[in-house]
Amino acid sequence: MPSNSSSSLGQALLAPRAIALVGASGDARKNTARPLRFMRKHDYAGRIYPINAGRADIMGERAYPTLADLPEAVDHVFVMIPGEQVLPVLEQCPAAGARVVTIYSDGFAEAGPEGMARQHALVARARELGVRLLGPNSIGSANLHTGGIISVNAAFEADDLQAGDISMVSQSGSMMGSLLSRAAARGFGFASSVSVGNECDISVGEVVDALVDDPHTRVILLFLETLRQSTVLAAALRRAREAGKPVVAYKLGRSEQGDALSQSHTGAMAGNDAAVDAFFRAHGVLRVQQLETLFEIVPLAARYRDVRAAAATAARPDTTASGAAPASATLSDIDGSASRAPRVAVITTTGGGAATVVDNLGMRGLVAAAPPPAFVAHMAGRGLRIRETPVIDLTLAATPAQYKDLLEQLLLADWCDAVLSVIGSSAQFHPDFAVNPLVQAHKPDNKPMAAFLAPEAPASLALLRQNGIAAFRTPEACADALAVLFQRRPAPAPAAAQTPFLWPPGMPRTGALTEYEASQVFQALGVPVARSCLVPAGDPAHGLAYPVVAKVSSRDVPHKTDAGAVRVGIGDDAQLRDAIATMLDNVHAHVPGATIDGILVQVMEGRLLELILGYRLDPLVGPTVVLGAGGIAAELNPDFAIRLAPVSVQEAHAMIDEVRATRLVRGFRGLPRGDCDALARAIAAFSRLALATDVTVAEAEINPLFIRADGVVAVDGLLHMQ
Amino acid sequence: MPSNSSSSLGQALLAPRAIALVGASGDARKNTARPLRFMRKHDYAGRIYPINAGRADIMGERAYPTLADLPEAVDHVFVMIPGEQVLPVLEQCPAAGARVVTIYSDGFAEAGPEGMARQHALVARARELGVRLLGPNSIGSANLHTGGIISVNAAFEADDLQAGDISMVSQSGSMMGSLLSRAAARGFGFASSVSVGNECDISVGEVVDALVDDPHTRVILLFLETLRQSTVLAAALRRAREAGKPVVAYKLGRSEQGDALSQSHTGAMAGNDAAVDAFFRAHGVLRVQQLETLFEIVPLAARYRDVRAAAATAARPDTTASGAAPASATLSDIDGSASRAPRVAVITTTGGGAATVVDNLGMRGLVAAAPPPAFVAHMAGRGLRIRETPVIDLTLAATPAQYKDLLEQLLLADWCDAVLSVIGSSAQFHPDFAVNPLVQAHKPDNKPMAAFLAPEAPASLALLRQNGIAAFRTPEACADALAVLFQRRPAPAPAAAQTPFLWPPGMPRTGALTEYEASQVFQALGVPVARSCLVPAGDPAHGLAYPVVAKVSSRDVPHKTDAGAVRVGIGDDAQLRDAIATMLDNVHAHVPGATIDGILVQVMEGRLLELILGYRLDPLVGPTVVLGAGGIAAELNPDFAIRLAPVSVQEAHAMIDEVRATRLVRGFRGLPRGDCDALARAIAAFSRLALATDVTVAEAEINPLFIRADGVVAVDGLLHMQ
Repeated sequence: MPSNSSSSLGQALLAPRAIALVGASGDARKNTARPLRFMRKHDYAGRIYPINAGRADIMGERAYPTLADLPEAVDHVFVMIPGEQVLPVLEQCPAAGARVVTIYSDGFAEAGPEGMARQHALVARARELGVRLLGPNSIGSANLHTGGIISVNAAFEADDLQAGDISMVSQSGSMMGSLLSRAAARGFGFASSVSVGNECDISVGEVVDALVDDPHTRVILLFLETLRQSTVLAAALRRAREAGKPVVAYKLGRSEQGDALSQSHTGAMAGNDAAVDAFFRAHGVLRVQQLETLFEIVPLAARYRDVRAAAATAARPDTTASGAAPASATLSDIDGSASRAPRVAVITTTGGGAATVVDNLGMRGLVAAAPPPAFVAHMAGRGLRIRETPVIDLTLAATPAQYKDLLEQLLLADWCDAVLSVIGSSAQFHPDFAVNPLVQAHKPDNKPMAAFLAPEAPASLALLRQNGIAAFRTPEACADALAVLFQRRPAPAPAAAQTPFLWPPGMPRTGALTEYEASQVFQALGVPVARSCLVPAGDPAHGLAYPVVAKVSSRDVPHKTDAGAVRVGIGDDAQLRDAIATMLDNVHAHVPGATIDGILVQVMEGRLLELILGYRLDPLVGPTVVLGAGGIAAELNPDFAIRLAPVSVQEAHAMIDEVRATRLVRGFRGLPRGDCDALARAIAAFSRLALATDVTVAEAEINPLFIRADGVVAVDGLLHMQ
Repeated sequence: MPSNSSSSLGQALLAPRAIALVGASGDARKNTARPLRFMRKHDYAGRIYPINAGRADIMGERAYPTLADLPEAVDHVFVMIPGEQVLPVLEQCPAAGARVVTIYSDGFAEAGPEGMARQHALVARARELGVRLLGPNSIGSANLHTGGIISVNAAFEADDLQAGDISMVSQSGSMMGSLLSRAAARGFGFASSVSVGNECDISVGEVVDALVDDPHTRVILLFLETLRQSTVLAAALRRAREAGKPVVAYKLGRSEQGDALSQSHTGAMAGNDAAVDAFFRAHGVLRVQQLETLFEIVPLAARYRDVRAAAATAARPDTTASGAAPASATLSDIDGSASRAPRVAVITTTGGGAATVVDNLGMRGLVAAAPPPAFVAHMAGRGLRIRETPVIDLTLAATPAQYKDLLEQLLLADWCDAVLSVIGSSAQFHPDFAVNPLVQAHKPDNKPMAAFLAPEAPASLALLRQNGIAAFRTPEACADALAVLFQRRPAPAPAAAQTPFLWPPGMPRTGALTEYEASQVFQALGVPVARSCLVPAGDPAHGLAYPVVAKVSSRDVPHKTDAGAVRVGIGDDAQLRDAIATMLDNVHAHVPGATIDGILVQVMEGRLLELILGYRLDPLVGPTVVLGAGGIAAELNPDFAIRLAPVSVQEAHAMIDEVRATRLVRGFRGLPRGDCDALARAIAAFSRLALATDVTVAEAEINPLFIRADGVVAVDGLLHMQ
């Protein structure tokens, strides 16, 4: 969506000046009575028009029989009537001036085929009428700054909801309310919240786009069950990143069971959670694992937007003037880049409490860094004795002033990338000791500081919140937030226009290719393939040096090994002819009537390692490229790296580092090294299937891809088009 | 420890009648003023004697200069003076009547070699005096029923600490306070809490043993950084299980970093977290992953002590009268047994909220089970329409009475092993709808019921807590609790006296064995080993059929392959002699002066799969046996099962199921099957190294162990004794 149109959408969606409530009830116990009550409670300054054919008065406000009876134009209509009555209301919306219609009604896509048909009809008519739809099955939206609570969400009954700078978009209406209530109880204030329901028209991406233009919104939170219209979302995420508005997501579907549930619950297509992860990382979205991290991370996400770069700078040995200890771990376990693992300086008044976070940090690939001797000496010079341990324990030794000074020195030190304070009972009883110093310390913008409070300490949590300091209730959420903060990658440099991949002339553009055809496509992309030729079965002269492999080429025999249509280690012409005869017998027995294109004769290749290189048009996020371990053992131990396609050679190197099996060709235990540069080039080349002109590749796979000391070679492969 | 002696220990430790406070301060700001204030605040009915040489009066109580001046015997002395002054106080304890001395003072084992020496001296003297020590570096203990707060823990400043039936033992004093405050804020009441400090004498195990006999204690919680005196703990855990008192543990050290930190923090030995896991599982300890699960799980742990058996019964197809759906997953991912995955029936008023738990359940190997058609029909007959979906959504359709009825029917149904209720905004605003039915429903003891409240809803959490219903604040802790609840195994049947393993006569009893010697020990245990003979290098007549493997046997050459001392595929006598000459040259070049025992000639064995079978005397938990994947790839993907040794053949089968690589010989993709019965027998036999008489085996390994269609065979191995 172009941003100027969505900006106009944004006004009607997020900040309407006049709202009609179709189906508003005067019975305070009903959900449909809520929007009017909420807006009055939150002092909405715009005009509200209840629409109810049966009553002239709703809770003291004049009600109108239909939209056609309104005295002025409204820009937003909220529909709370049975699903089958929505279409007639929609017809009246353009005349009433409405640009956005939010539909609370259910009975649409979530309710089976009949509801799906009803939803399609609704969308088609809305397009004709030039009206945008939010929902159906949306619990509504709310603007805490204007008091425009166009929502039946019970969360707005609460008295403690504050206006603030966080906006939330949710595919679950009820969870939006739950998250609002939890965040509000912790003192977080909200700008807008939007429940997108079935996303029949306005999707999460368009709402995010509108929030990028919303002056009240500084951080955008997403509660997602699936992804719809990911290209719209991708464009909005790019604009959010440009605008410096961080986006944090909690997405269901990390387990197969959760994924299946989301599909059945939302009618979404089956996607691949790893592909969704790749999508989020490519677009700088912070995907949290723990539910409450979604809002607890906000102060970190909002303030520290470039921590990866800071870590990378600090990691250069020549910049570590005060004696950085060598890091034993690297980031590669986390995000596939080979840079250093983020180093967290931990100070505490509770050794056991600090250990609960450090243990979780370790499981997420972050290092609790011990202060180097130079820093210990530096602090001794300032009157504080600390030790070279991964947790700096100040239980007995320090004053509040010393605590503050240590924090400030750590925030300036070059041997750590973040500072974590774990506070014990003083958080509960003596906030002056270890909580106030966090507030008072001078905190530069380039190094994250966070706190975990070990005891029950709501007042200290609130104090830190009020001062914009990230404070966590659980060690798990604390470690989660720090881990995802350092996973965020810098925005890619503006890409040169990507060269399209010209589909080889004469190559089929639909259906499945034969192995030989697929190998020609791979070669055209720039992937080295095993030398081969397709020869007639009756005259298999080939000109390749023996030994060779022979395979029956037939579009009707996709699983050649199962059909007995592959022979390896063929030593001469006579063996080749024997092999062909046997294979043809096998194929005809296996697939009677199969059409044989010929015999593919291929050079026998040697290798150090077998990998699988795959391409898939993911139904949720689009083109993806996957590098994985080969062989049967890989089926037992998932070991792969996935990215949105196409990828650069640099990104391909990160993928190689991420696949554990590649260690076997990267110097592991003195084994011979493989040509990882050639491998990276092959991955990048293969991923350009995403740029094919006039062809949509659904799936392609090179399996196996042989890694050798002096290059790589594709030995077998397949390619299906949409 | 015999239980009658510890029971006497328990009285002095947990319920002393008279307490001396050595070093009690009259300055209310000091930690050392706290115990007296706390005990007055909590109405301790026993006698308290402050000991302070400098004052006659402490906060209105008469103070005494030394223990020798007391007017009556005390049974517990709490020492709060500098570490170097503790020993003289200890000398006075027997005469003062004290059986337990709790030492708050630090400067002992946690403070380096000098402190360690001071601690050793203290323990030695206490043994001579017949006094038991808690600590040093212990923050003290507390009995909420008697008001005996012998502790400086700030948590006891709180007004809301209630007496209850939970007791906690902690290796971290500060975290005990933090956990008490969190649990208290949620309405959990405590019986006793004990900080064990450095565990120089009384260890966690003895405290657990005392708590087994404590009438106020129903559930025992452990916060652990390491394990010390695991045999004492094991005995106490057996008694706890017999007494029906569940033990729940949160233990640090799941990451290498966390483990290293615990060691440096506590002076503990390096153990193996997987071995600790095996120890906990063997003894029925519920090890939670999330910190707050430690207390949130209490209602489940206390009430549902036999859920594994219930699940196993329900899993039998012939008992599922109302049409159980076949489970697609099994428990084997969780605990290595091949029984069915626990099936959780989920009902909710928030689809998104339910999905947050279901996603986490999926990651932990539990199944959200859809109601079978028979159950849907059953409920329709009772007037409630539900659907065959993994989450039963009652948002709009049900009354509170129907909600309660559905709960009760689910608790009686045979197609699910647990019932989870996920409550949305009604938990916040309308507890009558979805919270009260949980309270009112009839709940049998054989099927766990739990709740997750999606919004901020402290009143509903408290209401559920008061009614003994497990209610969780986060979806992660909720899934964690259900997962660990179903990991608990039934107590093993009383074991027949275990037959000792008689060390083969003439075999060395210290140091390292040669491969040939090790193979003889393995054979004596009952593990099939490759046929071999040790022959003189100059006269290698062997009587084995060719082809053979030859290896140089020498205690001086532990790494034979590296030394060029192994040759495979030897086809005849001439090749054997050549191979021996070459190997000897290699060995003499590699290890000049190596003593050669002879040449080990071994039959070449075939195999379907290579595994590693290991034995290790773990420094924390004692004898362990490990089955792991073999080959270099296994180093990249940890894939092993570990148990305390010895194991039964049945347990060995569970280990086999747990190692992913064994799927390659268990019917995966039509591959030939290996002899898993023989493998299980070999594992059980090998694990009897733990029963060796007069010999302590530190480490042994069979690598590789070949799995064949008709048996297993050990091909190479090592064995080191202590």
